[in-house]
Amino acid sequence: MTDPARNTWGRDQPIGVAVLGMGNVGTEVVRILRDHSEDLRSRVGAPVVLRGVAVRNPDNDRGLPAHLLTTDADALVARDDVDIVVEVIGGIDPPRRLILAALNAGKSVVTANKALLADYTGELAAAAERNRADLYFEAAVAGAIPVVRPLIQSLAGDRVNRVVGIVNGTTNFILSAMDETGADYEVTLKEATRLGYAEADPTADVEGYDAAAKAAILASLAFHTRVTAADVFREGISKISAEDLETASALNCTVKLLAICERVAAGPGEPTVAEGGKERVSVRVYPALVPRKHPLAAVSGAFNAVVVEAENAGRLMFYGQGAGGAPTASAVLGDLVMAARNKFYGGRAPGESVYAELPIAPIGDTPTRYHVNLQVADRPGVLAAVAGEFAKHGVSISTVRQEGHGTGARLVVVTHHAVESALADTVAALAEMDSVTSITSVLRLEGTEE
Amino acid sequence: MTDPARNTWGRDQPIGVAVLGMGNVGTEVVRILRDHSEDLRSRVGAPVVLRGVAVRNPDNDRGLPAHLLTTDADALVARDDVDIVVEVIGGIDPPRRLILAALNAGKSVVTANKALLADYTGELAAAAERNRADLYFEAAVAGAIPVVRPLIQSLAGDRVNRVVGIVNGTTNFILSAMDETGADYEVTLKEATRLGYAEADPTADVEGYDAAAKAAILASLAFHTRVTAADVFREGISKISAEDLETASALNCTVKLLAICERVAAGPGEPTVAEGGKERVSVRVYPALVPRKHPLAAVSGAFNAVVVEAENAGRLMFYGQGAGGAPTASAVLGDLVMAARNKFYGGRAPGESVYAELPIAPIGDTPTRYHVNLQVADRPGVLAAVAGEFAKHGVSISTVRQEGHGTGARLVVVTHHAVESALADTVAALAEMDSVTSITSVLRLEGTEE
Repeated sequence: MTDPARNTWGRDQPIGVAVLGMGNVGTEVVRILRDHSEDLRSRVGAPVVLRGVAVRNPDNDRGLPAHLLTTDADALVARDDVDIVVEVIGGIDPPRRLILAALNAGKSVVTANKALLADYTGELAAAAERNRADLYFEAAVAGAIPVVRPLIQSLAGDRVNRVVGIVNGTTNFILSAMDETGADYEVTLKEATRLGYAEADPTADVEGYDAAAKAAILASLAFHTRVTAADVFREGISKISAEDLETASALNCTVKLLAICERVAAGPGEPTVAEGGKERVSVRVYPALVPRKHPLAAVSGAFNAVVVEAENAGRLMFYGQGAGGAPTASAVLGDLVMAARNKFYGGRAPGESVYAELPIAPIGDTPTRYHVNLQVADRPGVLAAVAGEFAKHGVSISTVRQEGHGTGARLVVVTHHAVESALADTVAALAEMDSVTSITSVLRLEGTEE
Repeated sequence: MTDPARNTWGRDQPIGVAVLGMGNVGTEVVRILRDHSEDLRSRVGAPVVLRGVAVRNPDNDRGLPAHLLTTDADALVARDDVDIVVEVIGGIDPPRRLILAALNAGKSVVTANKALLADYTGELAAAAERNRADLYFEAAVAGAIPVVRPLIQSLAGDRVNRVVGIVNGTTNFILSAMDETGADYEVTLKEATRLGYAEADPTADVEGYDAAAKAAILASLAFHTRVTAADVFREGISKISAEDLETASALNCTVKLLAICERVAAGPGEPTVAEGGKERVSVRVYPALVPRKHPLAAVSGAFNAVVVEAENAGRLMFYGQGAGGAPTASAVLGDLVMAARNKFYGGRAPGESVYAELPIAPIGDTPTRYHVNLQVADRPGVLAAVAGEFAKHGVSISTVRQEGHGTGARLVVVTHHAVESALADTVAALAEMDSVTSITSVLRLEGTEE
């Protein structure tokens, strides 16, 4: 149906698209653009035409006509017949420069670049706003799973209290495999690399940098507050041992690398929310024990899932493939159709919303439950002494289990919610105790009290 | 940040909202509008002001100033200072008349009315398009769970092959309870009514009308084809017995009322898709056996979940609260903020997309797997005779299990995919066999072959 009042974009006037980068995702984006051009035209209202693809080496055979390939991304972005730029190169530069150039020329941008968005959304969103251009980035978090759009749009009238997600497929693959096979971290990482689930240099995934960037994006959207990667407390999975997963199993839990974004109360000494003090936002990525009956525990292999808890909506969960060429391309194409429709109908993507400006709570102030595993001397009074050390630091114990072990005993302590700094002080004090032989593991516990 | 190029809506110019209906959902919408006006203002860019609420009886105390209540919904919709109309009355009339009046006056509409949308989306969408107004309806399907927006927007560049959902909380509550307690349908329905999970007249829920309306909406969005409630094959849960759930358990399955929307091949005698024939769309609602390990089997109580399978995105799942005042209001408010932002920034909601115009496949042509439970005479050759009857009608058997039962035997037959008409013919023929004492149950089986 033609809209008589729409802007002057003609029904046959093509909407030109430039794709920057032709790795896994770019290849799939280009394939879908070419294979489904009729569907895309019907859904947009005007033809969507691929103008060119910026690549590093144009001599590789990609099954594309030579005239579509270029090494000059800047010139491609600047072309008069390019209306929308899809950036799937990754990394900060040149994507930052290219995206800014596109936005400043009034072109809309679709990107899957979590690292860039985690640090530069403010700058990019401002350029989009100034130039009345769209900036879409559904593909930056959790691949094909719609999470960005639901947070920006569907929950726009709600108050999100918490977002907890498994947003990195590599680490989830490794932890799932360790859980299933009982194998060590190093062995499992090698297998993941062999199968293509981990990159040759797995640091960004296994040390939690990738998840931290996504957590920053999710927290920004959920709390209408600008959160950057530097605001995210981050621990990776490289120290998780086969024994940790054994311990988890004994507790009917598994271990997951979680991205957690939540509202927390104002800190000690500050006025409470009720007293007019501001709430704060805590954003963190770390491996944690998750009870097997929790919905996130069932998310295995390279899958992703995000749980959103909102005041009125209650608990929502989104599940699917969080990475891979075709799934990520699906999210890119959804954004591309929306950006193209906006060109045709004169609409606009929602801009950045950071009006709440909540302060970031340091990790030391963040309340979490802990599971502490100790090797202790097997003599009377040790349990009481250990419990006393927790009490002295204000950490309340939920359960203690003592297991005889011949030469010594093992204590398994699960705490109530305690702030990180209090737990750290407790652990330091325990390490000094004569009757404590060793602290086998300290794991955070999530998803136990709802 | 101010957009210098946005339209002439002023930063302090209020966006007026009329709410039609003040039941469970309307009450929550009004509460959020009043309690969170500052947040809403920040998210929209301009103040969002409640102009009035249309109710049937203005004398009931609702804690609202009297001047906000009116029985004259038409006059409220027509007010010059009303820019957005929220319809949460339900049913076809007066909502249809009121929504058309609003759209024809260029006002945007947010509705949760699945029954109306299932039959009149074409008419309403055309009015919205003509008048450059928005029609949003996220709350019409699966309450707070974002499903409508992901299908319209996030998957706009993908090809959806299948949508399967649990979209009615009442029936899911009843089936979950029957599964847990072993109680009969009638007993469980009474308990659900007592607890407020079923209405005094539960017909719309238990006979599948509510789910069928939602299925029509989902199928329309997924396949870019107009599907109305009359196109949906529908069976309710009122004939499900305690014995059916027992049978399900023995097969490591449970029973769920599913809404299934899928692309199916062109019918017998028609050219196949490969030959240039059109695919068809099958939309159906019925109780089915679902393996316990399938993600939908774990959706219990009044919760909803929708699984979407798309060519590139793969399998996505959305889970949450599908009904209730606050969750549904959350979806309404999300739409309201988007409609208000569009007023302020000059954007547009995506219109109806029905370009594909796929034909609807009759249920007789739809391939499904079946579980057939027979009481048979305990004598040699019966199994062979029964199996022969399936083969004669072209229904291929996956497994047969025979259980001795003293005076007779029980045969449990699970088929491969077969079209409904072939199965119906088979069952009719089985009923005529001397050696078949009775057909205890015929249940469809979903979610077994992916």
